[in-house]
Amino acid sequence: MITSRQNPWFKRVRAAVREHAEEIVIEGRKAVADAIAAGWMPIALVRRGDALDDSPSSALPSRSDDVIFAPELFDQLGDTRTSQDTLALFARPPAGDVFARRDALVVALDGVQDPGNVGTMIRLAAAFDAAGVALLPACADPFAPKAIRASAGAVLNVPLAPMSARELLDCGLPLFAAAGDGAAVDPPARGAVLVFGNEGAGVSAELRAAASPIAIATSGRVESLNVAASAAILLSRAFSLRS
Amino acid sequence: MITSRQNPWFKRVRAAVREHAEEIVIEGRKAVADAIAAGWMPIALVRRGDALDDSPSSALPSRSDDVIFAPELFDQLGDTRTSQDTLALFARPPAGDVFARRDALVVALDGVQDPGNVGTMIRLAAAFDAAGVALLPACADPFAPKAIRASAGAVLNVPLAPMSARELLDCGLPLFAAAGDGAAVDPPARGAVLVFGNEGAGVSAELRAAASPIAIATSGRVESLNVAASAAILLSRAFSLRS
Repeated sequence: MITSRQNPWFKRVRAAVREHAEEIVIEGRKAVADAIAAGWMPIALVRRGDALDDSPSSALPSRSDDVIFAPELFDQLGDTRTSQDTLALFARPPAGDVFARRDALVVALDGVQDPGNVGTMIRLAAAFDAAGVALLPACADPFAPKAIRASAGAVLNVPLAPMSARELLDCGLPLFAAAGDGAAVDPPARGAVLVFGNEGAGVSAELRAAASPIAIATSGRVESLNVAASAAILLSRAFSLRS
Repeated sequence: MITSRQNPWFKRVRAAVREHAEEIVIEGRKAVADAIAAGWMPIALVRRGDALDDSPSSALPSRSDDVIFAPELFDQLGDTRTSQDTLALFARPPAGDVFARRDALVVALDGVQDPGNVGTMIRLAAAFDAAGVALLPACADPFAPKAIRASAGAVLNVPLAPMSARELLDCGLPLFAAAGDGAAVDPPARGAVLVFGNEGAGVSAELRAAASPIAIATSGRVESLNVAASAAILLSRAFSLRS
């Protein structure tokens, strides 16, 4: 059992939690088991020293090559509020091709800053069968621990690609932007990009200039909807229009 | 300027942040100004000692009876991550009558535990003109600081009422429950209660037994939707059906 903060495994896992650069961390037995079931091979399974996971029914039985941290060391890793006793280190997934399918919508996040919103919107993209999620500059990292948790694992099963506004504009698909000043019309069902903007400032001027605005009809009793709520409504509607 | 943690104002505001019992706290100049504009009178306006808010264009100009905390004292109050220099102490609003209107939906939260979800769903109830929000046991407090922030002020302009499952069952309106095992049909537009359940366990057995389940059609690529996303989709749809 590893007890030292100087241990190379501890330093490596801590860096993945904090920096999520070349390596990322998935927290919790179920989330790790789901990732493995989806075909992602962990670099290491990491256990809290007092974790007992040897029941035959466990989704993630203990293995001889598990990395075991003393409880007080394991607990220093946690960005998480929930108590977990298992996490896994993975290589950061490569960018996917978000434009490979034309039978669905591409979701573009334009400066969505909150990792919880980014993760929630990736979960919605999976739920409503989007072709992929384009992440424009100033978005939170989808592989930040909070984003991974909010995505409920969807970061590993939806194509994700960071790109510039120019690359998005050159993709050849018509652009639509969720915007308070648009008409409250149905979103396109397929073959288009649906852009969601920053929590405060909305979609950037460059993309708004190229996009058709779509609003969501509301009572007017609140100034705006949360960006993830807007995504839920428009992506669900688009999915029902093509089902 | 108040500098002591023993000061009665400091203790009182700190208790309101932590316990939100008889008194609650609203954070930030804009949120406080909105609450006052909506007719809520603060018990006290609290400023960070270095806050300057004497411009004629300010929504919330400094007043002689503002309570001023030294910056290091003010910063100890914050549950908030964002930097604010103003907050206000209010009496906890009384319960409203969530059944007063029959031309809209009543939203019931049945054990929604996360204060961010509770606040987001109250914001959605306002956005889509719900008659009110019934809060069943085991829900997070809508007047927790995180819930107030997520509601974007809507906690003060939607009728809210804590109640038991029995009281809800006795309200005389038909019940519908957001549930994965229902048919993916349109929600009712008005004159009904729409129940949303706990993040993990869903709607409680007692209410499910009395409610018609409604599902949201998804791709099946995720196990479930976040409860606030489900509320966004169903409340938006109900609103559009009665507009």
